[in-house]
Amino acid sequence: MNAELDARVRPAFEGREVLVTGGLGFIGSTLARRLVPMGARVTLVDSLVPEYGGNRFNLAGLEDRVRVNISDVRDPHSMTTLIRGQHYLFNLAGQTSHLDSMEDPATDLEINCRAQLSILEACRRHDPQVRVVFASTRQIYGRPEYLPVDEKHPLKPVDVNGINKIAGESYHLVYHDVYGIRASSLRLTNTIGPRMRVKDARQTFLGIWVRRILEGKPFEVWEGDQLRDFTDVEDCVDALLLAATEDAASGRCFNLGGLERVSLKDLAARLVAAAGEGTYETKSFPAERKRIDIGDYWSDWSAIRDALGWRPRTPLDDTLRRTIEYYRTHREHYW
Amino acid sequence: MNAELDARVRPAFEGREVLVTGGLGFIGSTLARRLVPMGARVTLVDSLVPEYGGNRFNLAGLEDRVRVNISDVRDPHSMTTLIRGQHYLFNLAGQTSHLDSMEDPATDLEINCRAQLSILEACRRHDPQVRVVFASTRQIYGRPEYLPVDEKHPLKPVDVNGINKIAGESYHLVYHDVYGIRASSLRLTNTIGPRMRVKDARQTFLGIWVRRILEGKPFEVWEGDQLRDFTDVEDCVDALLLAATEDAASGRCFNLGGLERVSLKDLAARLVAAAGEGTYETKSFPAERKRIDIGDYWSDWSAIRDALGWRPRTPLDDTLRRTIEYYRTHREHYW
Repeated sequence: MNAELDARVRPAFEGREVLVTGGLGFIGSTLARRLVPMGARVTLVDSLVPEYGGNRFNLAGLEDRVRVNISDVRDPHSMTTLIRGQHYLFNLAGQTSHLDSMEDPATDLEINCRAQLSILEACRRHDPQVRVVFASTRQIYGRPEYLPVDEKHPLKPVDVNGINKIAGESYHLVYHDVYGIRASSLRLTNTIGPRMRVKDARQTFLGIWVRRILEGKPFEVWEGDQLRDFTDVEDCVDALLLAATEDAASGRCFNLGGLERVSLKDLAARLVAAAGEGTYETKSFPAERKRIDIGDYWSDWSAIRDALGWRPRTPLDDTLRRTIEYYRTHREHYW
Repeated sequence: MNAELDARVRPAFEGREVLVTGGLGFIGSTLARRLVPMGARVTLVDSLVPEYGGNRFNLAGLEDRVRVNISDVRDPHSMTTLIRGQHYLFNLAGQTSHLDSMEDPATDLEINCRAQLSILEACRRHDPQVRVVFASTRQIYGRPEYLPVDEKHPLKPVDVNGINKIAGESYHLVYHDVYGIRASSLRLTNTIGPRMRVKDARQTFLGIWVRRILEGKPFEVWEGDQLRDFTDVEDCVDALLLAATEDAASGRCFNLGGLERVSLKDLAARLVAAAGEGTYETKSFPAERKRIDIGDYWSDWSAIRDALGWRPRTPLDDTLRRTIEYYRTHREHYW
């Protein structure tokens, strides 16, 4: 979707081994769709845990051109075997639900902390030349003390997920500083687009909104005045490709962001407009959500612009239209 | 050792149940020696892992006045049982060795992250009224960007231990903010005094210095110009008692510190003077240490002074003399 960038990074990936954890998920599968035409030899690792983002249909049309390996990042044995000989590791598997992290914090820790540490140990011992990109999250900042949030903003997470993602990211940075592993971290904001999870709000609330619209049911907007930014998944993949190939990324973490900030109410109206159908109700926060809500957020992404030349390219309304269209066509694979 | 403070907090502890993890260790046992005369009903949890700080002799004279429970904080079952009905939890058990955290990061994660999370889950489910004090560390700051280091200093740990201690501390703060658990965290700097581990440098380098002096052997000072601050263990216990009893501590983290900052060379000379014997050699850093060294550090402890009225009271030379004297008398229990 960004032919110019893909042509530029192609020499770095052509014929090279690339491992993507969470590879059947939303971002991982979109990344694979860009890497395969470049001639990369792509292995997608996914455990297809039903509550997470993996979906075999995300690979439709690509099944014969990638290797799919069903295993869990929590299993250090399979990960150690898989990491040997890889040139790139896109470390995208994660537990992403804020609420789940409070209800089952031990599982969040297993995936977001312990698995990351064992993956990095495997890199250090068996593949120290690998280039690693880690998918971090704006959740690590907590409630913004100022806006837009840059990378120097204090890290004050409001939930266990945010705490564990800080640890996961920090392991990557320490393994860079101490062992020279070429790792970088991207702090994703709301990433949206085709192939996101729409079964529920575990990955993004936008998923359940899309589903309700296409089911002809009203969706719920909680509060509605909160401002957020959104990254199109293809723009996110641009950043992953740059972080993996630019030496300037090593040992650093970068915010991603969007072209505009928008209130949730406004987003709801624009989603309905993009769909040409749909209704919604504005409600106050459920109590268990309110306690871990972060209020307004939008990110300053000038650091990755200046260091790697990344910028968001896709207008929000384009993303919304493309997303609605995708699920209209493929709903039977995602409901 | 601080009769005035002990008299003041006595009503809060008299007849109350107090659980201390790492209770046979350096700080835990010193805390128990203050709590027992106040009439607290003290349970000390320790697994006596040989590489850590627990030592039954630390309790000498107190054996019949506390309950010792051998179990490991990594065991959620025993911890859940032990936490029920406690009024206070001093959560001191930890893996403290920076080097061990790099050589065996998974064990550091088990103790410093996962065990903390399961302890807090037990508090939330079975004892939400408990007051919790967590022993954190200056290691979470990494290499200081400015001095003295206050609590707003960015957290950029240089080793896995620092990363995991951030997570452990953050769990306490999130469980306060979300569930109302009255937890606070003290960020300890070098804590020294009688009952510290002197078998090796795992707890503090000063331990091995003391031991070598009393063995009549030279000790090693690495580099030597680094500036550090030191907290007497009794002053540290003052802070623990205040953090447990003052409402203003809930949900907050505070630096501890010392009365003066001193170079390691100067400290070596003063330790030799305190002992009246001893020699040392200045050496450059071993490579694996250099990579995780933090350079100069001293802390700004004005936040805990202002909020809780704590201040360090013990002059460094008094601490050094008392420490040497203790190990001269009791060396057979610590070597």
